[in-house]
Amino acid sequence: MPRIAVDAMGGDFAPDEVVKGVAKVSLESGIEVVLVGDSARIQALLDEGPYDPELISVRHCASAIGMADDPHEALRGKRDASIAVAARMVADGEADALVTAGNTGAAVLCAARNFKLIRGVRRAALASVYPRETELPGQDVFGLLLDVGATIRCEAAELAQFAIMGSAYARRVSRQPSPRVGLLNMGREEGKGGDVLVEAHRMMRALPSIHFVGNVEGSDVATGRADVVVAEGLLGNVVLKLLEGIGEAASHLASQAAHDSWRVRLGMAMLAPGIEKVRDMTDFGTYGGAPILGFEHLCIKAHGRSSARAIANAVKVAAKAVRDRVADEIAEAVAGIR
Amino acid sequence: MPRIAVDAMGGDFAPDEVVKGVAKVSLESGIEVVLVGDSARIQALLDEGPYDPELISVRHCASAIGMADDPHEALRGKRDASIAVAARMVADGEADALVTAGNTGAAVLCAARNFKLIRGVRRAALASVYPRETELPGQDVFGLLLDVGATIRCEAAELAQFAIMGSAYARRVSRQPSPRVGLLNMGREEGKGGDVLVEAHRMMRALPSIHFVGNVEGSDVATGRADVVVAEGLLGNVVLKLLEGIGEAASHLASQAAHDSWRVRLGMAMLAPGIEKVRDMTDFGTYGGAPILGFEHLCIKAHGRSSARAIANAVKVAAKAVRDRVADEIAEAVAGIR
Repeated sequence: MPRIAVDAMGGDFAPDEVVKGVAKVSLESGIEVVLVGDSARIQALLDEGPYDPELISVRHCASAIGMADDPHEALRGKRDASIAVAARMVADGEADALVTAGNTGAAVLCAARNFKLIRGVRRAALASVYPRETELPGQDVFGLLLDVGATIRCEAAELAQFAIMGSAYARRVSRQPSPRVGLLNMGREEGKGGDVLVEAHRMMRALPSIHFVGNVEGSDVATGRADVVVAEGLLGNVVLKLLEGIGEAASHLASQAAHDSWRVRLGMAMLAPGIEKVRDMTDFGTYGGAPILGFEHLCIKAHGRSSARAIANAVKVAAKAVRDRVADEIAEAVAGIR
Repeated sequence: MPRIAVDAMGGDFAPDEVVKGVAKVSLESGIEVVLVGDSARIQALLDEGPYDPELISVRHCASAIGMADDPHEALRGKRDASIAVAARMVADGEADALVTAGNTGAAVLCAARNFKLIRGVRRAALASVYPRETELPGQDVFGLLLDVGATIRCEAAELAQFAIMGSAYARRVSRQPSPRVGLLNMGREEGKGGDVLVEAHRMMRALPSIHFVGNVEGSDVATGRADVVVAEGLLGNVVLKLLEGIGEAASHLASQAAHDSWRVRLGMAMLAPGIEKVRDMTDFGTYGGAPILGFEHLCIKAHGRSSARAIANAVKVAAKAVRDRVADEIAEAVAGIR
């Protein structure tokens, strides 16, 4: 069974929800977890509810990085921050993968500083799972979007590697034998998007290990047209945050409309349970997390607002990716095109 | 009163909805319109309902460009296509501005080939109006996003000019004395997004003629944080299409959820009128259109699915922009920074 290092101090509701989530996992699976952080607080939280002490150990460290801290500065000042200690444990072989709901920049930086890139991989990518429509029977209700912020601009060969990495992860984690991969672009035609995207399109079409469905547009992101959407970090980051913000905006918009008339107000009152349902479905906090792909070791970045359930899912996803040897699969696919 | 050339043959519901929209305008305002297209069909449609013959004239031309046609190829083959003839009329001074609901690429291309760039402007931009939340009293319910596809990648100085052009248009058309301008980026901090965006941020902050609120993220797009959102064409295009697609996806998602249980099904049935309301509010087809900014003459690109009401709004917006001398305002602001 894999052993997962969990940053107990990272996240808006840390350490409480993180520890609760890990306690939950210990009762549901055989996954071993090391909780990294303030041991007194962690132990007190563990003592509040049932957990399996055989599967949970605690590694004490004194400091933690805040959600709003500048990652570079914070890591310079706090070498013993929980995320940094947890990453070093994975690098040193004391654990197999890393899970954190903390500062995204710090997670990416700790991975970059402590983990080696998979042989042949040019750059790591942060991938995010997001809910979308499905089009085909058996299709996962979640899509994978990468990169969402580990890079800014990318070269064509880097985007092609993101396609390989995202496809390998989706194949293993969402159990789709042949995930459909799309290149995010301003038009479906292969000539769209300028030199880099035209070249990336050509390279992806030639990859034997992926099922490339061509360019996808902004309007395709929320559909089932592609299971893996590839973009440079700037573009992917804006798209991800737009998706996250849109649910919230829609319900605000609805409540503004409610001031219009009694009829609309009544309609909106009836609407409330439905809105809640849609909000639940699109609540990123309730799902696993975003893998940082391209390193020999996996880091799952859970959403900052993660509940205990989200943390538990993230730990399970990390363990599954380790068991299914996602990093090896990426290495083989990348080696195949060199 | 301004005289507007309207491409009668452009749009999913052309010429019917276009002609109806123009007939409506003629009864509501003093705006003169030249309908460009198949004169027999246009006249037959005009004869179906009331209109003011003093304000509407027809310019016959035999061909038209389809919504799915390749713009370059289509324009090569059809020099007398309605959009091309209408653009030449504006360039020749026979009309003051151009309105089309047809092929966007063809509209941009016809503007680029027939209109001169405003002195000092480096590149034109396609701007799109979209519904969003408001934060401040008196704020327009629509935001302006540019560029959404006239460019792919941009230099910092080009983005700074987009900020000037968008601000001038928003000031005149949405009557906000000081529209808030934001630069779309992957973080709010000024150091985010790489060299081009860092430099664009610096330039925008130094512009005396705009109210720059700094970087905005994907999650800010649907809020009232900025009235004018500036991005290179690739990024703006993906964001716009995502916004357009999201309403549709949300209602599909809701109907999928409806299969879950009778309780959810009941909730969704109650939800129907509310969903319709939100859909109406976010229906791009019911609003004016997207101005192509940077040329001496204005072109308003109405949505392909434009109804008569949307066409009427687009014609009124074009007339207002001409009366308010938006092009002169852009020229002055651009001259001020040279």
